[in-house]
Amino acid sequence: MPVAQCDAVPLLDLPFTLAALRAAYAGGLSPEAVVEEAFRRLDALSDPGIFLYEARHAALGEARALGAPDGRPLWGIPYAVKDNIDVARMPTTAACPDFTYVAEADAAVVARLRAMGAICLGKTNLDQFATGLVGVRTPYPVPRNAVDPKLVPGGSSSGSAVAVARRLAVFALGTDTAGSGRVPAALNDIVGLKPSLGALSSIGMVPACRSLDTVSIFAGSVAEAWELFELTAFYDAADPWSQALPAQRLSPPPPRFRVAVPDALSLRTYGDEAQAAHFRATIAKLQAGGAEVREIDFSPFYAVAELLYSGPWVAERVAAVGARVTQAPETLHPTTRAILNLGLSLTAVDAFKGLYRLQELKRRCEEAQFICVPTIPTFVTLEEIGADPIGPNARLGTYTNFVNLLDLCGIAVPTGPRGDGRPGSLTILARKGEDAACASLALRVERGGRAPVPVPAPAADEIALAVCGAHMSGLPLNHELIHRGGRFLRACRTAPHYNLYALPGGPPARPGLVRNADGQGAAIAVEIWALPRTALGDFLAGVPAPLAIGTLMLEDGSEVKGFLCESHALAGARDITREGGWREALAADAPAPRELSPVVEP
Amino acid sequence: MPVAQCDAVPLLDLPFTLAALRAAYAGGLSPEAVVEEAFRRLDALSDPGIFLYEARHAALGEARALGAPDGRPLWGIPYAVKDNIDVARMPTTAACPDFTYVAEADAAVVARLRAMGAICLGKTNLDQFATGLVGVRTPYPVPRNAVDPKLVPGGSSSGSAVAVARRLAVFALGTDTAGSGRVPAALNDIVGLKPSLGALSSIGMVPACRSLDTVSIFAGSVAEAWELFELTAFYDAADPWSQALPAQRLSPPPPRFRVAVPDALSLRTYGDEAQAAHFRATIAKLQAGGAEVREIDFSPFYAVAELLYSGPWVAERVAAVGARVTQAPETLHPTTRAILNLGLSLTAVDAFKGLYRLQELKRRCEEAQFICVPTIPTFVTLEEIGADPIGPNARLGTYTNFVNLLDLCGIAVPTGPRGDGRPGSLTILARKGEDAACASLALRVERGGRAPVPVPAPAADEIALAVCGAHMSGLPLNHELIHRGGRFLRACRTAPHYNLYALPGGPPARPGLVRNADGQGAAIAVEIWALPRTALGDFLAGVPAPLAIGTLMLEDGSEVKGFLCESHALAGARDITREGGWREALAADAPAPRELSPVVEP
Repeated sequence: MPVAQCDAVPLLDLPFTLAALRAAYAGGLSPEAVVEEAFRRLDALSDPGIFLYEARHAALGEARALGAPDGRPLWGIPYAVKDNIDVARMPTTAACPDFTYVAEADAAVVARLRAMGAICLGKTNLDQFATGLVGVRTPYPVPRNAVDPKLVPGGSSSGSAVAVARRLAVFALGTDTAGSGRVPAALNDIVGLKPSLGALSSIGMVPACRSLDTVSIFAGSVAEAWELFELTAFYDAADPWSQALPAQRLSPPPPRFRVAVPDALSLRTYGDEAQAAHFRATIAKLQAGGAEVREIDFSPFYAVAELLYSGPWVAERVAAVGARVTQAPETLHPTTRAILNLGLSLTAVDAFKGLYRLQELKRRCEEAQFICVPTIPTFVTLEEIGADPIGPNARLGTYTNFVNLLDLCGIAVPTGPRGDGRPGSLTILARKGEDAACASLALRVERGGRAPVPVPAPAADEIALAVCGAHMSGLPLNHELIHRGGRFLRACRTAPHYNLYALPGGPPARPGLVRNADGQGAAIAVEIWALPRTALGDFLAGVPAPLAIGTLMLEDGSEVKGFLCESHALAGARDITREGGWREALAADAPAPRELSPVVEP
Repeated sequence: MPVAQCDAVPLLDLPFTLAALRAAYAGGLSPEAVVEEAFRRLDALSDPGIFLYEARHAALGEARALGAPDGRPLWGIPYAVKDNIDVARMPTTAACPDFTYVAEADAAVVARLRAMGAICLGKTNLDQFATGLVGVRTPYPVPRNAVDPKLVPGGSSSGSAVAVARRLAVFALGTDTAGSGRVPAALNDIVGLKPSLGALSSIGMVPACRSLDTVSIFAGSVAEAWELFELTAFYDAADPWSQALPAQRLSPPPPRFRVAVPDALSLRTYGDEAQAAHFRATIAKLQAGGAEVREIDFSPFYAVAELLYSGPWVAERVAAVGARVTQAPETLHPTTRAILNLGLSLTAVDAFKGLYRLQELKRRCEEAQFICVPTIPTFVTLEEIGADPIGPNARLGTYTNFVNLLDLCGIAVPTGPRGDGRPGSLTILARKGEDAACASLALRVERGGRAPVPVPAPAADEIALAVCGAHMSGLPLNHELIHRGGRFLRACRTAPHYNLYALPGGPPARPGLVRNADGQGAAIAVEIWALPRTALGDFLAGVPAPLAIGTLMLEDGSEVKGFLCESHALAGARDITREGGWREALAADAPAPRELSPVVEP
């Protein structure tokens, strides 16, 4: 069916974003024109290093075959695929010409994107077999960094990151084992979402370290990266590493949240003062926005990171590349070959010892709600990596190598220009399954904090729950919500008909909220959280007498489920209604802030 | 402090059980006398193979030092420790004389037992370095099987199992990597509890395969084994493998539960028809007791089992034994040496390939609420193992080798004599953290199912909910429970501290239950329903103000979640407390008696 052409926006100026393309399609633009524009932009760049395979013909055919807009979420959206992920009828090279095969089927993630109407523009360059963080370990031309041609493009997902940064594609698939989905995002000033291991199917992906690999997502904004994560994440029974993770939704971080950052002694920027200053400034903004920042010794994280290339996981890379390492080493990039050779001499005993070392280090890597690090410690130039192919590459993994070994999820987000104009990037990390929490916090820091905040509401499979005591953010029982997939919606007050009491007992100290019969009372501060409905049973089982979950009236007259207290238990309780809320009552009770005595030097 | 001697029960007849010893101690018996009796029994056996170190002097000293009963849970209870677990000031040999050292400190589990007043009688024999399931791979005399001296004692925890079976000790610690805590339990007709990995600290235990090892518990009954599990399980931050598992409680299995068993084609008994028939009869009893039995193809479980000794985990044993394997092989038992040698040639690549194979097989091992298997496929005689030191040992691991690789917990429980008089044993397996569910089901099958019939109780994935109004069976809102998978447990009354009110509004007419502050009030009729925990969120979302779900106290003093009413709403409500319940109030109000629909039990 022919589609009318829209001439309102010149294609040259059309931003390649989900929102802009959807609007343009709604106005009558054809996907064919968009694909043509993508390749026109590519041609204009004269950068033969971005794509290893340009699917001009196939992409145009797919665009034509789409017909009229049909409501599919990615209808007509052009994207790129790292060349270690299969796209049916296209070659997969993993940047090793001798390895090349033509894929018979789409990788599982690609199949989903195709079913949703997305159009694959081609296959992008990478560090061979995804072994590297610089993007120059390829026998093909090296893609030019989109920010500064003197810098390495970053890797291993070099071409995917550059394709998005150059706005040739709305998004791109990468892979991430050691940081390949984050480092090139920082080097090209875009978003790199590194999912929880197992969230995205790895079927159809050439493995690097099978136990640590994940497909990753590059996009121009956090909102787009998150939408693509939501659309592509699924449990794949055919993938032994697939994990059935609970559904997650983007939501603003609660008013109080805890962030761990490397302390001054353990922050590594290799002399790049601009990077250190920009990181400190970004964290200061988070702190001003409610983060309780804790500086931690980062040494155990660095020790975990070292295991990736000096421990048994190098042998896992050998297992992935296979007989080629010993039988056809000349077909490998010299640097890749040198790294893989290290894995050949390791024994199974070494492998288990490495696993033990990781198990021990895990205990020393402090658990935190969020861990924030610079995505890269500093920039690397082509000149530097030319002089030393190993050292600068290793440095780029400072804040990424430990992440998959510790089974964290994360997102690299642009934080605006540093003092010297180079792009800043923060990586937000959290425990497996907390991808949405990472992306939510990333929305707040994106480009220096100018991103809009979405309106909070519970989804159909969630229940809104008003908490007025120890379950509020930052208080001792908040984890009971967090660990059950709860997410903060907003802070507000009850209708002015309630009294609040400090109940005897504890720890933790707990208040009781009671509605008055006579319409008297006060408006009490509460937090509204969304909890998966399926989790409420477990949650309620742990709520002791005299607390109950009933229905509260809020100051706007709406009703919400939430904590109440049985009236019979108020004997012996202290009326703290005039404090207006539990957090305020705790502050009033706390001993006055102490004056720090000056250090007296003997 | 001297303790009076009790002459009421001759020590020779005193059963070494927790209950009997506690009663005897309450009657004035001294721990010293019990320790003396334990060693008298040992001497009478003339079996030098049970203990590798007899702590006669130390145990008597500890018994004397206990003084008067002080309420500690294991005060004066004698037990034995497998000789790969440290007890302070005693030698640890792991059945390898050249390995021997005197432990400076107690293993973490032993320290807990000591703190609770238990008395260690000594260290027990084992297959060297816990490598074996027969109990004959030791340079010391082999312990005699407690059931039939022609049979192997089973291993690797041979001495611990025999010590309990001979009633020398009330319980004993073993370890379990491949089945060492279960196989000897079956061979000696006692209970072997194999905890979830990480539930008991492994600090102070000589490793076999560090990633698969656990301390285990032998006892004469399920109830005793469970009590000891509860007393010894704790999260140990010093142990990298320790897991913070949720607290668990023994409770009768629900009326309906699901059990998977090997199907006829894949059940392996190596020609032992008595074993197959006894297993079928045991499962038939479970089925008659409410189990939904599903026969499954057990091949994937056997494939996992094979990995333990033909895959990379043999190298993990090499890592545990250390340089001795290559530098002093002559200090090893010949069979142990032969097995460990297999691990020397494996590469790190092999190790990862083995981990991949396990990951793939996990997907094929069907998840089930419970998996029930014969603990051993058949018996092994000393003659058979003498003729072939490897084959019969491997056969004994048929139903145990896969368990720790799949991270299951389990318990081996005597099921009474088989047709030929030899002891039957069933192993009940469940997912990590479901130790209590396993032990609860084991209570039902113990010694042929003569355990008491359980009181209806909610399952682990259900929540008990007291309803006092329109949700009771036959009343208008009962379907809200039924349609969400709710099931009736029982009818009872609250503690006599409540008032019941007929609330204005409706239909349906609803009562409000309120607890009184002053201890006044009445016992109100309620029904206890079990609702799937995942369904409570939906259910609660439909509960309108002024009703809430909190905690009720029942007439027996226990607590249960259930319906309560906010006190502010009682203005305008009618006090119907004297009716004693909602059903009674409806009957009193009704113009004519209505037929109530019968209770629906799904």
